[in-house]
Amino acid sequence: VDCTPFSEFSFIDFIKSQAKNGWIKDSLGIGDDCAIIPYTDTLDLLVSTDAFVQDVHFLLDKASALDIGFKAAAVNLSDIAAMGGDPLALFLTLSFPKNTEKKWLDEFIKGILSFNVPLMGGDTTASKEGIFISLTVLGTIKKGGSKLRRSGKAGDIICTTATLGNSGLGFEHLKENISSPFIVHHLRPTPHLKEGKFLAQFTETHAMMDLSDGLAIDLFHICQESKVSAQIDLDNLPIEQGLKGKKHPFSYALESGEDYCLLATIDKQAFNEINIQFEKEFNHPLYQVGHLIEGSGTVEYFLNGKKHPVQYRGFDHFSY
Amino acid sequence: VDCTPFSEFSFIDFIKSQAKNGWIKDSLGIGDDCAIIPYTDTLDLLVSTDAFVQDVHFLLDKASALDIGFKAAAVNLSDIAAMGGDPLALFLTLSFPKNTEKKWLDEFIKGILSFNVPLMGGDTTASKEGIFISLTVLGTIKKGGSKLRRSGKAGDIICTTATLGNSGLGFEHLKENISSPFIVHHLRPTPHLKEGKFLAQFTETHAMMDLSDGLAIDLFHICQESKVSAQIDLDNLPIEQGLKGKKHPFSYALESGEDYCLLATIDKQAFNEINIQFEKEFNHPLYQVGHLIEGSGTVEYFLNGKKHPVQYRGFDHFSY
Repeated sequence: VDCTPFSEFSFIDFIKSQAKNGWIKDSLGIGDDCAIIPYTDTLDLLVSTDAFVQDVHFLLDKASALDIGFKAAAVNLSDIAAMGGDPLALFLTLSFPKNTEKKWLDEFIKGILSFNVPLMGGDTTASKEGIFISLTVLGTIKKGGSKLRRSGKAGDIICTTATLGNSGLGFEHLKENISSPFIVHHLRPTPHLKEGKFLAQFTETHAMMDLSDGLAIDLFHICQESKVSAQIDLDNLPIEQGLKGKKHPFSYALESGEDYCLLATIDKQAFNEINIQFEKEFNHPLYQVGHLIEGSGTVEYFLNGKKHPVQYRGFDHFSY
Repeated sequence: VDCTPFSEFSFIDFIKSQAKNGWIKDSLGIGDDCAIIPYTDTLDLLVSTDAFVQDVHFLLDKASALDIGFKAAAVNLSDIAAMGGDPLALFLTLSFPKNTEKKWLDEFIKGILSFNVPLMGGDTTASKEGIFISLTVLGTIKKGGSKLRRSGKAGDIICTTATLGNSGLGFEHLKENISSPFIVHHLRPTPHLKEGKFLAQFTETHAMMDLSDGLAIDLFHICQESKVSAQIDLDNLPIEQGLKGKKHPFSYALESGEDYCLLATIDKQAFNEINIQFEKEFNHPLYQVGHLIEGSGTVEYFLNGKKHPVQYRGFDHFSY
């Protein structure tokens, strides 16, 4: 029996290899935050789809129906933010056990609708056990204006649009029934739609993606796709003062994932001016975490100017 | 505890009521086979999403991975056929247990790609138990050219694009390990994309939808949406000679569902000419099963010219 363990990412590669022959002309398929399909004369269509599975992505005894709907929509919309686009509509499939309360479903749908993006279609079915949610979001963006993972350039400054690791510590507190202000970051992440649109207006913003799996692995994807390497200054990681848990703060910031802010690489010459405008708009600066260099797709870490030996691993959705 | 049992359809009504405020201008949301969104100057965009759940929609010991992928894609594409459109791209979310064989996944994706519609995005995650599939299809159609459920008119001839009940008997044979030519109808339904496109070119084709839940309940939806009633001639139901199982042939044809051919209502004056052209194109005629009349949304059955008392019920995905 050919029963090989394999990671989520190798399966995505496999689908890519199976599917790439038939893609639509001038479109981009699997491999970025969204697929890009030619739309009108002036707009591209963006499409992304995400699954949310009970006991893998959420725990029924730790999150309310409103939380779960809110986060499912936020995570899906975050893919539109990562391209710099505007959301257009959501489509939902939902499988749930027969004994699910109508009140739970009512609150769940309210959560899905939290961002005023219309829910324009769906399919509901029974499941024998567990709640399975799949959301598809359509969005639009100026033709050719999408920010891709593969567009990073050596010399770019690497930055994030928020502090890192809050969701990871919040998840720890949630599991351990510790009341804390970090929990809301885990249960109700905010898709950085405005930040994405702001950054996408500059041609000097090169690569962009959302931080779902943790900076370590997400940046690794940008490096691999852009055929550059990255140097991260651990001293500069944007970490909240109060981020203190069982693990080292760097671990939350680099590995825990689910921050759902944006990771961007911006031309070094243009960075300061973009950052000034960003701060005016959002009342805080972009957080510089390092820079891209010529290289073969690796991520290196520096602490106090010295190379740091630890290799961080991002959250793999198969490691539940 | 507010724990009310409720059917799939009432939940769809509920989502409609929650969601309708935010729909996109000139678009159609939940309630037809696809959502319709303005696309280019000459085209509308069609979107539909479907869930396929182990032990609800398929049995792992009765269907191969290729069968399951094939049928998931067929059912999803059938929604595009029901509007009269052309498929553009598929998007997949897939949740599966860690011990799923790579070979199974390989064959499943091959099944998804059976119809040469590109798979342009997806998300894979673990599940604790059971395989959950969600597919979203995008399609296009001439602007304003979609055939809706609400467009049926009193006087229309009601017809189908294939014989009915084959999938239902096939499912019975499959469960009872009886080798039969009906099983392929259950495992590998063909989306009637060509038939849908053919019928959609005529303004005299009024209402159209795909037959997923059985003629009885699907026609009921057309009647409700179109604010007309229907009379079905049971003598005229298109049923294969060999359709003999545990239930009455009418029951397979009306109730079993999953035929995934099309149900259309066509202007009485134009029907004969359209039917002649249809037969030239597809080597069999449209199957007339009855006609629409003025009324309040009911479906009545006639046998040998006499009203038949039995009320048939379609397959509700919650009645597993």
